[in-house]
Amino acid sequence: MNEQQYVVNGFKAAAVNAGLKKGDGPDLALIFSEMPATAAGVFTTNRVKAAPVLLSMRHMKRGKAQAIVANAGNANACTGTRGLNDAEKTAAAVAGAVGVDPEAVLVASTGVIGAPLDIDAIQAVIPGLAGALSEAGIPDAARAIMTTDSFPKLSAFDGQAGGVSYRVVGLAKGAGMIMPHMATMLCFIMSDVVMDAGQLTDMVTSCTETTFNRITVDGDTSTNDMVLMMANGSAGNDPLTPSDAESFRGGLAGVMGDLARMIVKDGEGATKVVDVKVQNARSPRDASKAVRTVANSNLVKTAFYGQDPNWGRIMGALGRAGIDMVESQVDIRIDDIQIVSKGLGVGAEAEKEASKIMMGGEFDLTIDLHQGPYHDHILTCDLTHAYVSINADYRS
Amino acid sequence: MNEQQYVVNGFKAAAVNAGLKKGDGPDLALIFSEMPATAAGVFTTNRVKAAPVLLSMRHMKRGKAQAIVANAGNANACTGTRGLNDAEKTAAAVAGAVGVDPEAVLVASTGVIGAPLDIDAIQAVIPGLAGALSEAGIPDAARAIMTTDSFPKLSAFDGQAGGVSYRVVGLAKGAGMIMPHMATMLCFIMSDVVMDAGQLTDMVTSCTETTFNRITVDGDTSTNDMVLMMANGSAGNDPLTPSDAESFRGGLAGVMGDLARMIVKDGEGATKVVDVKVQNARSPRDASKAVRTVANSNLVKTAFYGQDPNWGRIMGALGRAGIDMVESQVDIRIDDIQIVSKGLGVGAEAEKEASKIMMGGEFDLTIDLHQGPYHDHILTCDLTHAYVSINADYRS
Repeated sequence: MNEQQYVVNGFKAAAVNAGLKKGDGPDLALIFSEMPATAAGVFTTNRVKAAPVLLSMRHMKRGKAQAIVANAGNANACTGTRGLNDAEKTAAAVAGAVGVDPEAVLVASTGVIGAPLDIDAIQAVIPGLAGALSEAGIPDAARAIMTTDSFPKLSAFDGQAGGVSYRVVGLAKGAGMIMPHMATMLCFIMSDVVMDAGQLTDMVTSCTETTFNRITVDGDTSTNDMVLMMANGSAGNDPLTPSDAESFRGGLAGVMGDLARMIVKDGEGATKVVDVKVQNARSPRDASKAVRTVANSNLVKTAFYGQDPNWGRIMGALGRAGIDMVESQVDIRIDDIQIVSKGLGVGAEAEKEASKIMMGGEFDLTIDLHQGPYHDHILTCDLTHAYVSINADYRS
Repeated sequence: MNEQQYVVNGFKAAAVNAGLKKGDGPDLALIFSEMPATAAGVFTTNRVKAAPVLLSMRHMKRGKAQAIVANAGNANACTGTRGLNDAEKTAAAVAGAVGVDPEAVLVASTGVIGAPLDIDAIQAVIPGLAGALSEAGIPDAARAIMTTDSFPKLSAFDGQAGGVSYRVVGLAKGAGMIMPHMATMLCFIMSDVVMDAGQLTDMVTSCTETTFNRITVDGDTSTNDMVLMMANGSAGNDPLTPSDAESFRGGLAGVMGDLARMIVKDGEGATKVVDVKVQNARSPRDASKAVRTVANSNLVKTAFYGQDPNWGRIMGALGRAGIDMVESQVDIRIDDIQIVSKGLGVGAEAEKEASKIMMGGEFDLTIDLHQGPYHDHILTCDLTHAYVSINADYRS
């Protein structure tokens, strides 16, 4: 990892161990912008929202922020009034340590649901955490927010607006409880670009739709998901021209898409990353239902694990997806190998070829419904013995 | 097993090996009524319907039938025109062997999707199968239709109508690809009761709703599911009085409920049977969505496997169920042990007690939403290493 590529003008970060997760690795991260930054966020659609989600949604209303504090090991979800007080105390401690208003601090948590946060431990380490802030600290922050993740997730993009260079750096965590709508984990993105809150919100929302809302590990949406972005303007560019804006959107989508794919690749127990594509559906809703039903089917996901192009299970999933499909019009491919033509199996040779591709670990599953002009896709992973082990043992 | 209790007046059954599934066990079953029987059926709601489903739906329109022929090892699904011809040939072979019209024969199949049926093998053994029909053969038929099932599933009920005794005997198969709507497998029910087709259809449909449509193993609905019932009238009872009809409905629901619970207990890799109950929902739709989302959550199901009363995952599932729930009103119990009160954890002692109950293998998970008068429930099982093994290896 080239740590230098994750430095962004005007941003610092650091991480410490606060004793919140097992082991002595870092579990509390702080990201700080030296100047007030434009801020935008997308938050979980789960009706059960963790305390830090509720607090950050409130603070985000100003369209400005200057710090993100995030802990692993405890989700501070389903913790009632006490949880909300603890999230506020965390924001206040950070605000005091870095010299900003508490409302300028966004809070995120990930870990076990339903246990009270050890707020004393957090308050105790925050002054030291603030003192350790450094330009090179963003990768440390990415490591600190890992739970069942097996690797830290970072991505960067260098762009230009009106001839002025800017950078976008994103970090994310997430491996289980992953399902579109929304956002599938924690993702923090920093940029030195100059941008107002309205445009930044539009960028973050549209890119979330095409990236984090197009991945699934296990069909479960977390109570704590959020994507937060701060743009501190230190690049000094002029307002973006339409073509600069599209370039920025492309770069941001690239960073978020990278991170989203890393999350699926690191899906709990996953050995395969599969891009499930539905083509030529009758409506966008049909395309979306079809990809989601196939990508979340346990039978399809165990077949991925077994490297078995078991297209009967794919047909079965399509048939119960609640769409108006016609069995005899369906074509299915694994990468370039067609295994189903007009609803019927192509044959054993094709399936053998397809199985070889599946052994490679990353492939496309393309379903053509031949019914209309609408496409959709979603990234998913396989369902493995290790997924069961991780989730049967997680709390014990 | 007391084989005698599965004898029904006027019905015979037999099973043979036709070489359709691995091993030399029976894989083709025939059930025959000596006289034309009133018939009723409920069929999969999957848009992709197997050939035997399409054929049996057509034959069922007459409200009469005299035989059911069912094979394991091959689902005859996604097999196009050839598959439909093969189902028709199967019905014709049985019709010839037992001396009835082909339209009086119902056909069912279970096994691998997308492979052509070995119709020659089936035609070759049908005369011998018909010759082996015996009053005591129903348990043999139950064994023949097993695929990943680990035990045959039989249930019986003895009732009276107007002082005349009748019997209801049901058999079922199913362990994976199990999900409400519909019916979750193959189930055949025989009775000697006198009943017209309209009343029989009403009975079978209403009892399916409360039994087979209230179980789930993996959220996948098969292309081949069906419940078939034949009532041959040999008991000689008068038309049922309203109170006799309620007694019959209760007995039939008991038989179907027994078989449904056996299917969950035999769920692929299952070690736990859990009755997920939602109480006091705002609407029937909310109650249904809540039980289905919790009962199909992989995170909840792996926690069952780990004997972990991980109520945070239950809250997370409720929050994404698409219902208008209020977190601070939710109570959760494992059998009689309350683990969540008003959205907050009761404590470690209660969870320890709950975990002990979960070790027992069969328990209730009760969620009280405190929002209205509507209840629902669904039987589910845990998600285990063995489920993954079975489904990653099924075709190989």
